[in-house]
Amino acid sequence: MYRALQKNNYKTMWQSLLLLSIIFMVFAVPGSAQSVEENAASIEILETALTFMWLIIAGAIVFLMHAGFSLVEIGLTRTKNTANILMKNLMTICLGIIVYWAVGWGIMYGADYAGLIGIDQFFLIGADNALWNSWWFQMVFAATGATIVSGAMAERTDFKAYLVYTVLMVALIYPVYGHWVWSGSGILTSGFLVDAIGVAHHDFAGSGVVHSIGGYAALAGVMIVGARIGKFKNGKPLAIPGHSLPLAFLGTLILAFGWVGFNGGSTLDANDPFVSLVIVNTFLAAGAGCITVMAITWMKTGKPDPSLTANGLLAGLVAITAPCGSVSNWAAVVIGLVGGIIVYAGVMFNENVLKVDDPVGAIAVHGYSGSWGLLAVGIFALGTGEGSIVADAAYTAEAAGLLYGGYQLFLIQAVAVVLSIVWAFGVSYVIFKLIDVTIGLRVSEEHEIEGLDVVEHGISAYPEFLIAKE
Amino acid sequence: MYRALQKNNYKTMWQSLLLLSIIFMVFAVPGSAQSVEENAASIEILETALTFMWLIIAGAIVFLMHAGFSLVEIGLTRTKNTANILMKNLMTICLGIIVYWAVGWGIMYGADYAGLIGIDQFFLIGADNALWNSWWFQMVFAATGATIVSGAMAERTDFKAYLVYTVLMVALIYPVYGHWVWSGSGILTSGFLVDAIGVAHHDFAGSGVVHSIGGYAALAGVMIVGARIGKFKNGKPLAIPGHSLPLAFLGTLILAFGWVGFNGGSTLDANDPFVSLVIVNTFLAAGAGCITVMAITWMKTGKPDPSLTANGLLAGLVAITAPCGSVSNWAAVVIGLVGGIIVYAGVMFNENVLKVDDPVGAIAVHGYSGSWGLLAVGIFALGTGEGSIVADAAYTAEAAGLLYGGYQLFLIQAVAVVLSIVWAFGVSYVIFKLIDVTIGLRVSEEHEIEGLDVVEHGISAYPEFLIAKE
Amino acid sequence: MYRALQKNNYKTMWQSLLLLSIIFMVFAVPGSAQSVEENAASIEILETALTFMWLIIAGAIVFLMHAGFSLVEIGLTRTKNTANILMKNLMTICLGIIVYWAVGWGIMYGADYAGLIGIDQFFLIGADNALWNSWWFQMVFAATGATIVSGAMAERTDFKAYLVYTVLMVALIYPVYGHWVWSGSGILTSGFLVDAIGVAHHDFAGSGVVHSIGGYAALAGVMIVGARIGKFKNGKPLAIPGHSLPLAFLGTLILAFGWVGFNGGSTLDANDPFVSLVIVNTFLAAGAGCITVMAITWMKTGKPDPSLTANGLLAGLVAITAPCGSVSNWAAVVIGLVGGIIVYAGVMFNENVLKVDDPVGAIAVHGYSGSWGLLAVGIFALGTGEGSIVADAAYTAEAAGLLYGGYQLFLIQAVAVVLSIVWAFGVSYVIFKLIDVTIGLRVSEEHEIEGLDVVEHGISAYPEFLIAKE
Repeated sequence: MYRALQKNNYKTMWQSLLLLSIIFMVFAVPGSAQSVEENAASIEILETALTFMWLIIAGAIVFLMHAGFSLVEIGLTRTKNTANILMKNLMTICLGIIVYWAVGWGIMYGADYAGLIGIDQFFLIGADNALWNSWWFQMVFAATGATIVSGAMAERTDFKAYLVYTVLMVALIYPVYGHWVWSGSGILTSGFLVDAIGVAHHDFAGSGVVHSIGGYAALAGVMIVGARIGKFKNGKPLAIPGHSLPLAFLGTLILAFGWVGFNGGSTLDANDPFVSLVIVNTFLAAGAGCITVMAITWMKTGKPDPSLTANGLLAGLVAITAPCGSVSNWAAVVIGLVGGIIVYAGVMFNENVLKVDDPVGAIAVHGYSGSWGLLAVGIFALGTGEGSIVADAAYTAEAAGLLYGGYQLFLIQAVAVVLSIVWAFGVSYVIFKLIDVTIGLRVSEEHEIEGLDVVEHGISAYPEFLIAKE
Repeated sequence: MYRALQKNNYKTMWQSLLLLSIIFMVFAVPGSAQSVEENAASIEILETALTFMWLIIAGAIVFLMHAGFSLVEIGLTRTKNTANILMKNLMTICLGIIVYWAVGWGIMYGADYAGLIGIDQFFLIGADNALWNSWWFQMVFAATGATIVSGAMAERTDFKAYLVYTVLMVALIYPVYGHWVWSGSGILTSGFLVDAIGVAHHDFAGSGVVHSIGGYAALAGVMIVGARIGKFKNGKPLAIPGHSLPLAFLGTLILAFGWVGFNGGSTLDANDPFVSLVIVNTFLAAGAGCITVMAITWMKTGKPDPSLTANGLLAGLVAITAPCGSVSNWAAVVIGLVGGIIVYAGVMFNENVLKVDDPVGAIAVHGYSGSWGLLAVGIFALGTGEGSIVADAAYTAEAAGLLYGGYQLFLIQAVAVVLSIVWAFGVSYVIFKLIDVTIGLRVSEEHEIEGLDVVEHGISAYPEFLIAKE
Repeated sequence: MYRALQKNNYKTMWQSLLLLSIIFMVFAVPGSAQSVEENAASIEILETALTFMWLIIAGAIVFLMHAGFSLVEIGLTRTKNTANILMKNLMTICLGIIVYWAVGWGIMYGADYAGLIGIDQFFLIGADNALWNSWWFQMVFAATGATIVSGAMAERTDFKAYLVYTVLMVALIYPVYGHWVWSGSGILTSGFLVDAIGVAHHDFAGSGVVHSIGGYAALAGVMIVGARIGKFKNGKPLAIPGHSLPLAFLGTLILAFGWVGFNGGSTLDANDPFVSLVIVNTFLAAGAGCITVMAITWMKTGKPDPSLTANGLLAGLVAITAPCGSVSNWAAVVIGLVGGIIVYAGVMFNENVLKVDDPVGAIAVHGYSGSWGLLAVGIFALGTGEGSIVADAAYTAEAAGLLYGGYQLFLIQAVAVVLSIVWAFGVSYVIFKLIDVTIGLRVSEEHEIEGLDVVEHGISAYPEFLIAKE
């Protein structure tokens, strides 16, 4: 009833200890069997409390990633669309909360139907503490896919159209694929496919579930919405510089901070000591990816490029998200390094071959590096055999990768790569087409030139600063 | 003396486990009664350690909210007053630390005098670990009230006058009301009032103690200091756009992140599993409040308004702060939704009826939504009766709300609403009047037009950027 | 293989408790000796898990300080060098990760050679969970020294030269001194020096190891690289205003937030209840330092200066970093207050006497206040004698300071101050000279005037905003 003072609740521990010892030495000498069980029960409660706390904090850190995504996206785009992007990202998380509560969670983690979809627990009906805790940690992941799409389609997408897509992403696209991988009864971890190959799919914290899905959905989106006016001239891509490198870099560092919760929390158990390996591998890959892209851009152009380098950090993080709990430290460095190469090559490929316009590099960072992360599990996973440093880990790839003599794990990882592309790209393509012919996916040319801030929201993000004419 | 290596401290756990088992199986077969008690004592120490850690982290997250408040306030005001606002907010937390250490804590949590005020523990004399831990978590709340006032009175208040008010807020206004609600012996949770009504007041994390107090103090402040030059023309309010929507939105997201610590930490016990429900309800309300205001502004003006929508998120968070540990998920959604309506209506009411000028909407967000949060406890609280999902929660409203057949809880909540308004508005009104006739509350017209940055601090916040003439 | 649902893992705790009790009461009545030992083992695992989690979170919070350092540095410098500074700081942490993994950790915490240097554990070969956990927390500290140097040398240092220095800082300068203080077998905590004086050196979280080392390395750097063009005119220092006070202040608050992890995590043991005292002292000193500098600048110039005041907060934090676990609350306030005086005096001394150019005040904040922090331990440490509030703390100064009758502790702290200055300044001076005659430490005058963003990275940090001509 009142916010009681801790002082009243907790006596000085040492006093308590002493007191307890005396009391027990006097009264409990014969040894009470019950106390042993009481202690065991208290220990179990503590283990759960530790995990609850860990997942609340980890979830909070992941929640803050939405600020990171917002800042990266506005930093790498133009002033005239800043308010619109901020609104899109704010609504993504808010719609995400409500939709994942009403529908998404049930689809993803409800009782399984045919390995394809969950069918109960909508609105968290009947939830208990464990389920609320789980929902919180899963919810902060759920809206991330839509945010990735937001970045790739920035500066020319209709606000209402984006909101409709976001609802469908959080209600359907993300949780269905998530069900396949993370529900424990989905087609990628049980059933005929797994029986045929002999090994279950492993995607620790979501290189595939979160990042690939977001990345390939984004690819469908940019294909249908088309490039921004002025991005391509005679088929050649032109640079459209972002308006604030400080905000883009602050966002990048907030995202890296967020990955502590993203990967660390994905042990789902604070009592699992392997969380430390997860964190170390995560940041080794991040560092390696970042340094790699700096080096590539330096060599290619004579000058290290800041935006791409920041994307190198993110690519390393995305790539290590699946394998971080299954590989050696040196492998994490290699995975990050290759992630850096992939993001650079991916951005070049998108602009010069596919000729699509992705202002923030989201497709390369999340899509291509995410797929690389899934394959990397199949290459570098140590397996749980004798002598493996991850033999005792609860959440690690159960089989060894190519480098350690296994080929089945690589196979199922490759299947998941194909499936994630087909699902995310395919369904999103259909949805964006439907949106395009109904609501209209793209703003008018006039509105795009004027900027979405004034057109969609009636304001300017920086009303006092003098802005250069284009 | 040295920062010893963990490697030396912690052996691999599994090795230890094995070793321990062997040692004990060999030597301790007869069963030592003492060990049971030692285990019980160790468990108790662990429970306390877990809570200490949780409150340190939760407190840190709440501390960061001061960055959030700063960013929202500068984002929604003009470039010429930015340095001044940053300084005000930095000094708020710094004065808050020192004043709450010297005086505030003792007033709030010291030994009770007549249910009205605490009278010892000034300067934390005689503190132990539990008290230091408690003080840290309470301290980060303490300066928040003053920060709320800062936002509402921005762009025309004298710096020195604001500092004087802040000291009085943290030393007196906040902790006295806090004593009434959270000390365990204050008039709203014990004594004649509670005896008469039959139920104690419930304000979990401070919809009233923190937000209402700040909000109604702000109302007194803006009434006395008056509107900014140019805010009203012929009695009609005019929009004065804030200078940086990115900073305002970043601040908003940092505040939402902070609420994990604000509400989550307020269980004051990491072993209480209901913290997960608290977090889930908190973010359901936030999402609902935000979506609601977006929808309202879209319907009213044809365009979803970013600043108001961000305030919708905050209103949902403020409203759920009191009831988050006492209500169902669906109720949290409703509470957030109504919070969104209230903040929109409140801003309109302030501008068009009261004709007061609150640049950031603090009075509506913290004052009105805070009062709504207190009343919402009296409506939606599930109570601790049989079958209630919060029956076992340590910090929940003990009685049921109107919807579940209780009327007493609503009554005491309504009393608290009245009391918080009378106290915060009344005392602040007197203090601001006294400051006005002595130091002077408002800067000169000339200085206001020039901007407080140059006048009060001799600098410009953005010296290199070209700023539009007004 | 799959991301199992918590719901499956954790039954409702109360159900479990009941079930367990029944099971044990039925089957275990004779009292199983083994269970006591199993409980003891489980408790030990929990204690370790709690510490692992605490250090992962504390490390994450410290990691975010790199965002804080970046923002402070760009906020206090000019638009034309912003991208360069962001890149420097991003590469600092990324190189820091890889170099501290490959070399730095081994030098700092590997098997001791002659009290001077560690000689194994390179690339973390043979690491286990405890070592990974330790490495993570130590790694986030390791790159901080280089970041401090970055700030002081901003706006005129060659990018490649800075990267070379950073690698050497993280591989050598920082870990060697760190080995002396924190390895447990270094010359400042064991061996002839300690035998001679009779007390080991105490530097809790690194006023010396991190901040002094960074600060005096920075002093060497600015001496060799020289002042920015336009900083001194006829020997008089001129103000070069930073381009964004909001970013500088946001960075400052992120740094203060980071200090919760920096000092709090440095207990290295979540079960140590003294972490609460550590946190309280940390923020008391921060508040006192900040208020002090505001007061000084107000008195000296008639106007409270924002940048210097923010540095007052940081100076208080740096100063309390060594003594926070060894002193009383009132002493923390005094230490912060003196830290504030020192940073103000230090900035004046640097500009007017040494005539060096440190755009962000890093030398005064980290170097001078860091040394003050080390000496403050020797003055205010309570010691572990009977009646001391820190008698039971694992990480506190073992002897009492001057105020409590001890002189030996002060002596060894003074020795450490001298040693840290000689080492950091001396070695850095040699390295910067070598870099200067090989790669070239400073950019050309033409490039400096044009700005490093365009010259080194081919971009502008704010391409759309109109910037005032100098």
